[in-house]
Amino acid sequence: MPRYKLVIEYDGAPFCGWQRQAEDLTVQGAVEAAVLRFSGEAARLTCAGRTDAGVHATHQVAHLDLGKAWRTDTVRDALNAHLRPLPVAVLSAEVVDPSFDARHSAIRRHYRYRILNRRSPAALSRAQVWHVPWALDADLMRAAARRLLGRHDFTAFRAAECQAASPVRTLEQLDVARMPMGLHEEIVVATSARSFLHHQVRSMVGTLMLAGSRRLSADDVADILAARDRSRCGPMAPACGLTFVGVDYRAEDDPAG
Amino acid sequence: MPRYKLVIEYDGAPFCGWQRQAEDLTVQGAVEAAVLRFSGEAARLTCAGRTDAGVHATHQVAHLDLGKAWRTDTVRDALNAHLRPLPVAVLSAEVVDPSFDARHSAIRRHYRYRILNRRSPAALSRAQVWHVPWALDADLMRAAARRLLGRHDFTAFRAAECQAASPVRTLEQLDVARMPMGLHEEIVVATSARSFLHHQVRSMVGTLMLAGSRRLSADDVADILAARDRSRCGPMAPACGLTFVGVDYRAEDDPAG
Repeated sequence: MPRYKLVIEYDGAPFCGWQRQAEDLTVQGAVEAAVLRFSGEAARLTCAGRTDAGVHATHQVAHLDLGKAWRTDTVRDALNAHLRPLPVAVLSAEVVDPSFDARHSAIRRHYRYRILNRRSPAALSRAQVWHVPWALDADLMRAAARRLLGRHDFTAFRAAECQAASPVRTLEQLDVARMPMGLHEEIVVATSARSFLHHQVRSMVGTLMLAGSRRLSADDVADILAARDRSRCGPMAPACGLTFVGVDYRAEDDPAG
Repeated sequence: MPRYKLVIEYDGAPFCGWQRQAEDLTVQGAVEAAVLRFSGEAARLTCAGRTDAGVHATHQVAHLDLGKAWRTDTVRDALNAHLRPLPVAVLSAEVVDPSFDARHSAIRRHYRYRILNRRSPAALSRAQVWHVPWALDADLMRAAARRLLGRHDFTAFRAAECQAASPVRTLEQLDVARMPMGLHEEIVVATSARSFLHHQVRSMVGTLMLAGSRRLSADDVADILAARDRSRCGPMAPACGLTFVGVDYRAEDDPAG
């Protein structure tokens, strides 16, 4: 029973998130339905990052087991044909060792958050940015971001409904950069960790926005983290600005390196 | 009667092009309706590049005359408020000399065309790219593009309904580049000229696509141009991949430089 690893891109807008639900359109549900139509098998997908409603992915990874050994190009092309016209694309399919697990073998997840920081609303990018119309100071955001790096109890940046056993996570990267392209109107937050708590990235971005607005100092952000004080966090940044952009696996678990 | 210069961004998808029409939603019609609601004046807009249905703009320029001297920030913000929720954003408004004409003062227009060149369909970028699923050779496209540079009769790359008095245009730039970001899946064509014929950019891109597919040589493309032979052109590339990205004015006509 071969195990397949899929790399999947999607626009999160029309989906109620990754995870299959009985009634609502989800990415997992859509891909599993395409698998059933293509192969006749009711396979179940496991993914690296179960994104929330409205969150996008350029490089989601999932695995599934099928009874039959298909050509991997056939798997990719058949799934894409059956997914049409939904904004989900299977970028690649490959056969992996049955010990590979898209979720549990992952050693690092990468997210990107885009803020459109200009007076005028978003037009072309409106489905993929958070529009903040007042001026943000990216240097202040960067200074505040540094205070969140490392191993901490991230209770302050955790959704009430988060089901993780522990609120302790190790934040490996939280970079803030004004993009050199265009009119420098876009601020991008790039973050990496082995795993994140539910809503952690969007909660951190909302708090960095307050730091960039001079409503919180870097010391305030450090205090909020240390006090595990969700009440002083910024607003949760909207889902549409967030994109899951990649996942790392141990070399021995990842035939693609 | 002050003249205002507007810089406008829009997603072309929901619009039947720039130019006002009696029944259909157009960018010009939407902005003029916003001007009327904001100022009570039925002003008419003149733009630098009258884009077709589905074509986007990051930096369209238009002018209009209003009876009243408003603060320019007020013009920008009021128009944006009245344009909501349409994907049109007025990025700036400024008062210019009455001799400035967004269309006739322009000395150079810039367009960008995005081709997503990978087997899998577009998901996140689907509204702004042409998906070409077979491998294109960007070097061959670039070699063919060079044969179109300069002053020529572009009848071969002109829409049947083009109303320009002369088919002669001077193509100043037609660059083809594979983007270094992501998985090198995107090919971008950047082109500049004082003005273009109707459908010229999309016709040239369709022909470059055939060159990249090895179905036309660079010599073939030069022959098609010289023979003014529309029948041998490539398909017209779809509108959604095309974006109007800027316009140059003589320094003395452009207060912004």
